[in-house]
Amino acid sequence: MPAAFLAGGSIDRVNTTSVVSLLSAIEDTGRDTRRGGYSRPVYSSAELQLREWFTAEAARRGLAVETDRNGILWAWWDLSDSSASAGPAGVPDRRGALVTGSHLDSVPGGGAFDGPLGVASALAAVDLLRARERDGSLVRNRALAVAVFPEEEGSRFGVACLGSRLLAGTIDPRKALALRDADGNTFADVSRTHGLDPEAMGRDDAVLRTIGDFVELHVEQGQGLNTEEFTDAAGRGPALAVGGSILGHGRWRFSFTGQGNHAGTTLMTDRADPMVAAAQLIVAVRQTASAQPGARGTVGRLEPVPGGTNVIASRVELWLDVRHPDDAVTASLVEKIHGQAQKIAAFEGCTVHMTEESSSGTVHFDPALQRSLEQSVARTVPGAPVLATGAGHDAGVLAARVPTGMLFVRNPSGISHSPEEYVENDDADAGVTALADVLEDLL
Amino acid sequence: MPAAFLAGGSIDRVNTTSVVSLLSAIEDTGRDTRRGGYSRPVYSSAELQLREWFTAEAARRGLAVETDRNGILWAWWDLSDSSASAGPAGVPDRRGALVTGSHLDSVPGGGAFDGPLGVASALAAVDLLRARERDGSLVRNRALAVAVFPEEEGSRFGVACLGSRLLAGTIDPRKALALRDADGNTFADVSRTHGLDPEAMGRDDAVLRTIGDFVELHVEQGQGLNTEEFTDAAGRGPALAVGGSILGHGRWRFSFTGQGNHAGTTLMTDRADPMVAAAQLIVAVRQTASAQPGARGTVGRLEPVPGGTNVIASRVELWLDVRHPDDAVTASLVEKIHGQAQKIAAFEGCTVHMTEESSSGTVHFDPALQRSLEQSVARTVPGAPVLATGAGHDAGVLAARVPTGMLFVRNPSGISHSPEEYVENDDADAGVTALADVLEDLL
Repeated sequence: MPAAFLAGGSIDRVNTTSVVSLLSAIEDTGRDTRRGGYSRPVYSSAELQLREWFTAEAARRGLAVETDRNGILWAWWDLSDSSASAGPAGVPDRRGALVTGSHLDSVPGGGAFDGPLGVASALAAVDLLRARERDGSLVRNRALAVAVFPEEEGSRFGVACLGSRLLAGTIDPRKALALRDADGNTFADVSRTHGLDPEAMGRDDAVLRTIGDFVELHVEQGQGLNTEEFTDAAGRGPALAVGGSILGHGRWRFSFTGQGNHAGTTLMTDRADPMVAAAQLIVAVRQTASAQPGARGTVGRLEPVPGGTNVIASRVELWLDVRHPDDAVTASLVEKIHGQAQKIAAFEGCTVHMTEESSSGTVHFDPALQRSLEQSVARTVPGAPVLATGAGHDAGVLAARVPTGMLFVRNPSGISHSPEEYVENDDADAGVTALADVLEDLL
Repeated sequence: MPAAFLAGGSIDRVNTTSVVSLLSAIEDTGRDTRRGGYSRPVYSSAELQLREWFTAEAARRGLAVETDRNGILWAWWDLSDSSASAGPAGVPDRRGALVTGSHLDSVPGGGAFDGPLGVASALAAVDLLRARERDGSLVRNRALAVAVFPEEEGSRFGVACLGSRLLAGTIDPRKALALRDADGNTFADVSRTHGLDPEAMGRDDAVLRTIGDFVELHVEQGQGLNTEEFTDAAGRGPALAVGGSILGHGRWRFSFTGQGNHAGTTLMTDRADPMVAAAQLIVAVRQTASAQPGARGTVGRLEPVPGGTNVIASRVELWLDVRHPDDAVTASLVEKIHGQAQKIAAFEGCTVHMTEESSSGTVHFDPALQRSLEQSVARTVPGAPVLATGAGHDAGVLAARVPTGMLFVRNPSGISHSPEEYVENDDADAGVTALADVLEDLL
């Protein structure tokens, strides 16, 4: 144990902390007793508590925490703070730094790992790297930051990866600021309430220049590591995979408008019921997506207006999620579904309006960074596979501007966006070790 | 003008007030800016404001306002207060009184007239009756009360006519008290918050004995008065109808349970999506109801859980409203739809559970009372038709215990449970005159 470890008042006093114990500290934050699991929408009290937890944990590690103008949290381990270049602190050089991190917000009734696993693993990896720096095995050549991105899930304002999209400039800030949550609050107003200046939001080249490479660790969200191709004799898959690509995806909102009326007094033949139209579209989406190999089509959110039991709805809003590896196929699927919606609406005496809420092409991670990740991960998990994922991530958005890569930690259930999402402790520990190795090799 | 009208300090100072001006006083209460129209769920701040308005208007008319143990408001014009039997007030004799009234709660995004028209018309009719008593044309033989029933729409706790059902003892109070609103609050807790004793709720024979006859005036909720059978050369229907019967109806809740999961990572073939199952049931409900002459089948409320755009739902709750004049047909329709739901759920790898939330047989109003109403109404609207309605009403529930009757005021749009619900001022005035005539003839 190096002497510095025992010195009072030093940031080196922070011992390494396991990712499991880090996550256990937030296991009661944002629990959803109605849906099960967690509901931690961006800027809710639950998500704000998680930000405070992150800020405190970063401070305990001597990291300098800042919030940028898009609401992204940055915890900086500057080079000037390194034992290799200790000295009077000037303005730290953060150009081309190495960045890791993920998000703390959740879908409604989501699992414990989607987002927080990447943030907690980053903090735990910093502990390992500090220890390695102390024993001389690590000499850093650039700064390291842990980033927390807001509204990754898009569960409050409808656009996934909103924080990284604003930073990267892949969404018009005026469009972002006009987004509304279910209570009608605009993203502009909510951002202002939380200390941000809506006028200053949008592409931030100064921040982008600080990101030399971005590596995100995330729980795997499907059966990718549980397939026969990878599992051992006991049916257990490897603890980790390296990200290869992210399936193109997008969200489209369909507003069916009919004639609201009384459920008892209105004859079946006199109706223009948007719920019946919406129901037919849901069935059509499943048929259309199933007929296209590799495609996914989902309606997980639907809101009838006014939504009374004894009321024929006047309007039904539904949200369509479509994904396919080939962006042209995604576009043609959406076009086909839009056509079906118009046909159904016309037949039902309703109208329909489709709005694209977000759309992202298939992302292939930076090949050089991916090879580096594969080599580093192999020290902990020999033969860790390269996996394509169907889930969107901030690393996929940032790939438009900087080299990005991902690590996926095995999910034995293969279930995500659900309370049943799961990660085993051993796999989580392996993830931290591998992430530390990845970062060490890149620092 | 009788002298009493000019005497200061007398309740007779209250002039007659038009129903239109009464309603205009509450036209801003409970407006729903998102859905349009009004959202006034029971015991919401909007409905409580309406209760205060009613209490103040009743007090202005010298009526004694009381809340019974089921939360029903009663504004009493006791016989001891009558000019015919003025004298030292003892305990007023309220046995077998004449009762009129309606409700103040609304469906989400409902119209301005459904409920409040009956309450305001009752108050305006009291003004007319007081004037007639003063000029000697009315001599009362029994007390009159204006009643306001809570949760007529069932839009907060799911059971329509909950107040009158509790009073009449047609719902088990334990079942009623366990009902929950969308936020998870029980009816017991909400009732307690509003000063009621949940232990004391349920059938109240003392109150039932005070109701000799109950007459409810209500806006017509369909095209009943706009059909060619009744309209004049200009296409205008009569201002009023007398109620003949209320279509049997009920509400059934279907819970489809599947496997919540990630919308991007879960292959179409690996899904058990309860939204796809629910959608198929909605289409089946329409087909089944349309195939049965006289039947109505509606799904106006649906809630996916967790309800995220990028999440395959784990559960979908939907509410079915079914109505038919023949109760046996209603029962067989629901049985058929339940069978369809089970078949659909099994095919989708889901399960389904159906719960009956309420069920009411077709009600034929008291024949003698109906004849009396027809004769009284003819003075204002000669040839006012007798109309069956598809909408449920407290008068239908109370018909199980006491003679009840209804008056329907013409709705030119034929639309109800919608902001587009409408009543013309002249028709509303005719309704008040006719209601006063009806009450005079029964007093």
